[in-house]
Amino acid sequence: MKSSISAASVLVRAVRASPRTSLWHRCVPLPSCQTPRGIRTESRRTAQVATAPAPEQDLPPLSNPQLAFPCLDNVEQRTERLSRRSMSGPEPSYTTGKHETFHSDEPILLDWGGVLPSFDIAYETWGTLNADQSNAILLHTGLSASSHAHSTAANPKAGWWERFIGPGAPLDTDKYFVICTNVLGGCYGSTGPSSIDPVSQQPYATRFPILTMHDMVRAQFRLLDSLNIRKLYASVGCSMGGMQSLAAGILENDRVGRVASVSGCARSHPYSIAMRHTQRQVLMSDPAWAQTRGNYYNTVPPHQGMKLARQIATVTYRSGPEWEKRFGRQRADSSKPPALCPDFLIETYLDHAGEKWCLEYDANSLLYVSKAMDLFDLGKQTQEATAKRRQDNAGRLQGIMSQQKPNDVCSLALPEEPYEETESSADIMASETPSSAHLKSADNDLVRGMAPLRDTPTLVLGVASDILFPAFQQREIAETLRKVGNRSVTHIELGEDKSMFGHDTFLLDLEGVGGEIRRFLG
Amino acid sequence: MKSSISAASVLVRAVRASPRTSLWHRCVPLPSCQTPRGIRTESRRTAQVATAPAPEQDLPPLSNPQLAFPCLDNVEQRTERLSRRSMSGPEPSYTTGKHETFHSDEPILLDWGGVLPSFDIAYETWGTLNADQSNAILLHTGLSASSHAHSTAANPKAGWWERFIGPGAPLDTDKYFVICTNVLGGCYGSTGPSSIDPVSQQPYATRFPILTMHDMVRAQFRLLDSLNIRKLYASVGCSMGGMQSLAAGILENDRVGRVASVSGCARSHPYSIAMRHTQRQVLMSDPAWAQTRGNYYNTVPPHQGMKLARQIATVTYRSGPEWEKRFGRQRADSSKPPALCPDFLIETYLDHAGEKWCLEYDANSLLYVSKAMDLFDLGKQTQEATAKRRQDNAGRLQGIMSQQKPNDVCSLALPEEPYEETESSADIMASETPSSAHLKSADNDLVRGMAPLRDTPTLVLGVASDILFPAFQQREIAETLRKVGNRSVTHIELGEDKSMFGHDTFLLDLEGVGGEIRRFLG
Repeated sequence: MKSSISAASVLVRAVRASPRTSLWHRCVPLPSCQTPRGIRTESRRTAQVATAPAPEQDLPPLSNPQLAFPCLDNVEQRTERLSRRSMSGPEPSYTTGKHETFHSDEPILLDWGGVLPSFDIAYETWGTLNADQSNAILLHTGLSASSHAHSTAANPKAGWWERFIGPGAPLDTDKYFVICTNVLGGCYGSTGPSSIDPVSQQPYATRFPILTMHDMVRAQFRLLDSLNIRKLYASVGCSMGGMQSLAAGILENDRVGRVASVSGCARSHPYSIAMRHTQRQVLMSDPAWAQTRGNYYNTVPPHQGMKLARQIATVTYRSGPEWEKRFGRQRADSSKPPALCPDFLIETYLDHAGEKWCLEYDANSLLYVSKAMDLFDLGKQTQEATAKRRQDNAGRLQGIMSQQKPNDVCSLALPEEPYEETESSADIMASETPSSAHLKSADNDLVRGMAPLRDTPTLVLGVASDILFPAFQQREIAETLRKVGNRSVTHIELGEDKSMFGHDTFLLDLEGVGGEIRRFLG
Repeated sequence: MKSSISAASVLVRAVRASPRTSLWHRCVPLPSCQTPRGIRTESRRTAQVATAPAPEQDLPPLSNPQLAFPCLDNVEQRTERLSRRSMSGPEPSYTTGKHETFHSDEPILLDWGGVLPSFDIAYETWGTLNADQSNAILLHTGLSASSHAHSTAANPKAGWWERFIGPGAPLDTDKYFVICTNVLGGCYGSTGPSSIDPVSQQPYATRFPILTMHDMVRAQFRLLDSLNIRKLYASVGCSMGGMQSLAAGILENDRVGRVASVSGCARSHPYSIAMRHTQRQVLMSDPAWAQTRGNYYNTVPPHQGMKLARQIATVTYRSGPEWEKRFGRQRADSSKPPALCPDFLIETYLDHAGEKWCLEYDANSLLYVSKAMDLFDLGKQTQEATAKRRQDNAGRLQGIMSQQKPNDVCSLALPEEPYEETESSADIMASETPSSAHLKSADNDLVRGMAPLRDTPTLVLGVASDILFPAFQQREIAETLRKVGNRSVTHIELGEDKSMFGHDTFLLDLEGVGGEIRRFLG
């Protein structure tokens, strides 16, 4: 009689036969690998619902039933489906439909020394550019959004900000010419890790260079040059776009008439970095990513890692109180016993959010763009260090193909001594620690860094229920700008009475967010 | 000349040769599986630091260097180490040292119908039980803590609440006899999924039955019976222990003199369920877990899944402001270019937290205990439904080995129709939706459910910076108890001026938390 554990032992013995085999990296191709014999997988039985349950004579008399894992069966089925697909044709291109493309044959030097020999920026526009090119608004997107902010003749599908753009809408296309781009590093038509490196003729994958918010903005201004737009009426963005909107106002101050930054920040907060870190780690741990180190373009993409990362992200997009109201403690099917797979309604919601997205966006784009968000810091020191690096690397534009310098190698390893937790809180609780002194100098550094915005009218909008870009980060922007001497700062904070949608408020609240933008644009 | 992508294509072609092969489940054992040829892995080169960099004549002239992934190299190395270990001896037992064990030969019926034919409860005690057995305090632990709350003669290692227990400490061992148990379902000596099922003589694994907070409390009272303690002076607990402390006061009301519940709740909130859901999903997606459906006991444990889950958990344990102060935006080594592996100090902190823990706790215990937290609800309806189920299943105690009923099969699948997001927020924002009416009835339900605590002096303590068990949940407990008619409710909320340690405050703040408990115990 073979029990489940004996089956597992078979697996172990097979591993032992090849001592260098790593289970994480290679699973021994035994039949036992997929389903240990003797374990009932209820979901498979459910699939053959017409037939009687399989007899289980070879099972020992167990006191409790084996749990079923339909959520894992589902992952396996998708992997199998994708594996068949990759046998019969090319990878899907990640696109949200027809858009314009700006192609630059001039190389671009990135803030961390990387070079793109040429690049594309996907964009869409709404409204009409006036004769003196003075009515253009550049709209910056969140992490995973495309240029398709609003439907167009070429692509009638509703955009991600459909109600916020149009005749009479907050971004009024009767008055303004609205431009939205897909970011550099993204996968919806702009050059990113899934694009073909013109030098190697292969996808960049993880040879794509580290990039920054400022690099994305720099590429956007190349597009504006090509459209003969010297000065923007306004730079507008939410979430990651709210970072870029500020960055544009500083990087190209004389070309930006006003800045609107919604649910953004002036520098990434460690909590936001932490949340993005877990997403990246989870994604990179998907064997489809880990085994190829991100070179998955000709094989099955890391769909489960993407699904997991999106679920974690979704937790940060909404707020607890809203979920309390919408889902409470309702289970998906309260007539069934609880399960370790999704069970409560909130779990099926997260599962579905991950499911919808896991093949819609390129995994490497997520990694690079999310990293760029972590690196965001408008402080003066960071700006100066970047300027120096750019100067040092300027020669690379002339010699793209030349030998790489040793310090270009991105090999940051953890310190030899692991991070040590302090046992007691006493040290940290003491009022004036070195770190809090450091904080104050960081404040001054930010004031110096944001000084170029002194004369730029700026709207800063935050949402009290946002846990990803908490309201204190927008307060920081507004206070810093006031310290800089800016007398045209409008700071709005939507309280929990106004919105309990957390970070996603900018996608939902036409009046609270859209209304303020409309008033600000004048 | 072989490029990285050609190597990946080799892998794909091999997969194509066997169409049913799932990459997620089996990686084809080619040399290319571990490191696609043509890709420079900088970390490996770092390992052979004395030798010159390997020549790369077979590389095409690429414009940017391949990123290195020392964090993934590290995972592979651990898998290899563990794989060697499992060749030469038994799995480690998860223990924090010597403890007492209460063994029950009487079976226990669990709330969801499962049966344990016998079970162990690991426990430790401090102080002396007085003559009339009236000075016992039962201390409930958080999710992953063991019975080792304080050092003992048998195990001098500092416990997880070392400073809170002892002569003159908040749990004053000059006055009280303090008992701490490892929970049922845990892995530190109490019966859990890693224990041997006496029926099958194999580890329970995912045949372990779904359990609840109340089941854990029920098992604790069996231990108290064996110690001849009829009535507790007090039930005290923090975090998950704060849930159990309330549950004990309701389940065994006449046996509990007073209740202290710190950073706990009366029912799990969807945000907390969401955070635990992501941890479970990440853990179950580790191939070592997924391929065995939790039967990993004779092979390599899902160490990377555990590491990832712990990192996500750690994000919820502390608060943003504390991290701002402690880590800010410091990078681990600012002289190096940024990396997709841990890079900022906050990332190395999370990485280390996961690293320390990934082999210290049983993965299945995490799944079952975390699920039990989700299921926690002191509302009357849940109590009544549980009572009915227990009655229906009472016969099973007599016939443990008998045929399982079809509805015992834990096969909850997602609904056919996926969860649909509402496009507009208008519906939800409207003031009196069905769900908010539902919320009010839920409030009444909780008042009815907590009614047994009317005459039990209760301390409820919350921390404003806690994002896992937010302060509104402790307010809910206190308000509900007052509605019940309880006139001995002490509700303390530590503001951000008092603690910015979030959920972990109970482990750190001897005065803020310990002081209140001391005063409450009198």
